[in-house]
Amino acid sequence: MSVCEARSLKVENILYRGKSEFQEILVFESSIYGKVLVLDGLVQLREKDESAYQEMIAHLPLCSIPSPKTVLVVGGVDGGVLREVSRHPSVEHIDICEIDKMVIDDPRVHLHIADATEFLRLAPEGKYDAVIVDSSDPVGPAQELVEKPFFETIARALRPGGVLCNMAESMWLHTHLIQDLISVCHQTFKGSVEYAWASVPTYPSGVIGFLLCSTAGPPVDFKNPVNSIEKLEGALLRELKFYNSEMHSAALVLPSFLRREVSEVNLQRRQDKSARSSY
Amino acid sequence: MSVCEARSLKVENILYRGKSEFQEILVFESSIYGKVLVLDGLVQLREKDESAYQEMIAHLPLCSIPSPKTVLVVGGVDGGVLREVSRHPSVEHIDICEIDKMVIDDPRVHLHIADATEFLRLAPEGKYDAVIVDSSDPVGPAQELVEKPFFETIARALRPGGVLCNMAESMWLHTHLIQDLISVCHQTFKGSVEYAWASVPTYPSGVIGFLLCSTAGPPVDFKNPVNSIEKLEGALLRELKFYNSEMHSAALVLPSFLRREVSEVNLQRRQDKSARSSY
Repeated sequence: MSVCEARSLKVENILYRGKSEFQEILVFESSIYGKVLVLDGLVQLREKDESAYQEMIAHLPLCSIPSPKTVLVVGGVDGGVLREVSRHPSVEHIDICEIDKMVIDDPRVHLHIADATEFLRLAPEGKYDAVIVDSSDPVGPAQELVEKPFFETIARALRPGGVLCNMAESMWLHTHLIQDLISVCHQTFKGSVEYAWASVPTYPSGVIGFLLCSTAGPPVDFKNPVNSIEKLEGALLRELKFYNSEMHSAALVLPSFLRREVSEVNLQRRQDKSARSSY
Repeated sequence: MSVCEARSLKVENILYRGKSEFQEILVFESSIYGKVLVLDGLVQLREKDESAYQEMIAHLPLCSIPSPKTVLVVGGVDGGVLREVSRHPSVEHIDICEIDKMVIDDPRVHLHIADATEFLRLAPEGKYDAVIVDSSDPVGPAQELVEKPFFETIARALRPGGVLCNMAESMWLHTHLIQDLISVCHQTFKGSVEYAWASVPTYPSGVIGFLLCSTAGPPVDFKNPVNSIEKLEGALLRELKFYNSEMHSAALVLPSFLRREVSEVNLQRRQDKSARSSY
């Protein structure tokens, strides 16, 4: 987090202030964005635009595969990602791995208060159709969630052709970090690796990115969702504020500067491969 | 402009501070966004992301019609939109209508220091293939640029099947204003009316919208650009940082909440029409 840009929100009313074993928690009512959740001083969610992030991080992976059944959510203490995953009637079992306690009342959901890396190391190989990593910013407890060993444990826990969606920073502020993430994921995931982004005013620079990866197996075309959200009925569909099938495909379209950065990674990869194969 | 959210940027070095007849001008060097232009205290442009706004506002309309030749730019004192319009080799004549003086060295460009409404009233009917309104925020001199008589003068100055691209606020902050703009434009433009948006961290909430309208005449399908930017050669294409043909189409895909707001306007319009036709 840079100190070269600061943003401030007017606090109308503090609703909750407390400290868990791992972080300081603050919830306040703001004047234009509704309720705001702050962890360790960093704004995580605002009522007005939380849906954009949570819908995209859940439906981008779950709509990219037919009938997801078993899903792991890493992080997501606020419950928003869980709410979105639950919309999918095909889902039978959701593990959520959090370091902090939370209250849940969906019988499909199994809460594990655990360190994610440890939890994944112990998970049965090939258990999950999808893994969603809703990590907070990569400082403090979430730091190891952007490193290669963590992605390797995820790839192991996914079935062939299973998918990962991982929060992946801002294209305006962290292009080098995004290049590194893509490069690491290409080494780990032998299916597809794609970058997507969405407009979320809450986050610095107003966008947040997602890294979508699939393991070797049935091919996954992230650009064209096979499991259309529009088949949901009634409130399950009506309540969606941001995600729709067209938005899914549009999220994978990159501005020219980012497209070039991503091509550089892919070029480097091909060169490394052909160098290796010529030994 | 609300005072309920504030953003601050670290100023490294003030490069220019002055006052024209119409506005206070400040240019400074910031630590993470490069040079920043401020008019009357409102941030207008930052070097790092200005291209996103300027490329989109110029290429969305110009790539939607075959061979644009005559173009009017309203506003755009900083020259960025002009730079983008100039990339199109088919363009032969560019009028720019600004209330403030500026320096220009492209022989195709004709500067008119004038009030835009007056200028348009005097323009020959059907003169322009495209009009781009790069207005600053709708306070001070730019206020009348969001009202119906202004759009009517634009429609009159456009050829049949000519296009308008007008800066159109943030989908997160100004949904009602966007509904009003779309409604006014439907009354004025008898071709297509579409809303598009782009990620521009400079602006509050991190997005900016564009209203794309065409007059009656040869139909314009804004979603599928007929005048592909990828046919440009060398630096003209390489220098683009944000816009590309896929981004063009993606910019017209709306999040579900905005899609619903826009449908409401269209529904209201159809009801008004059928009420009128039943008299």
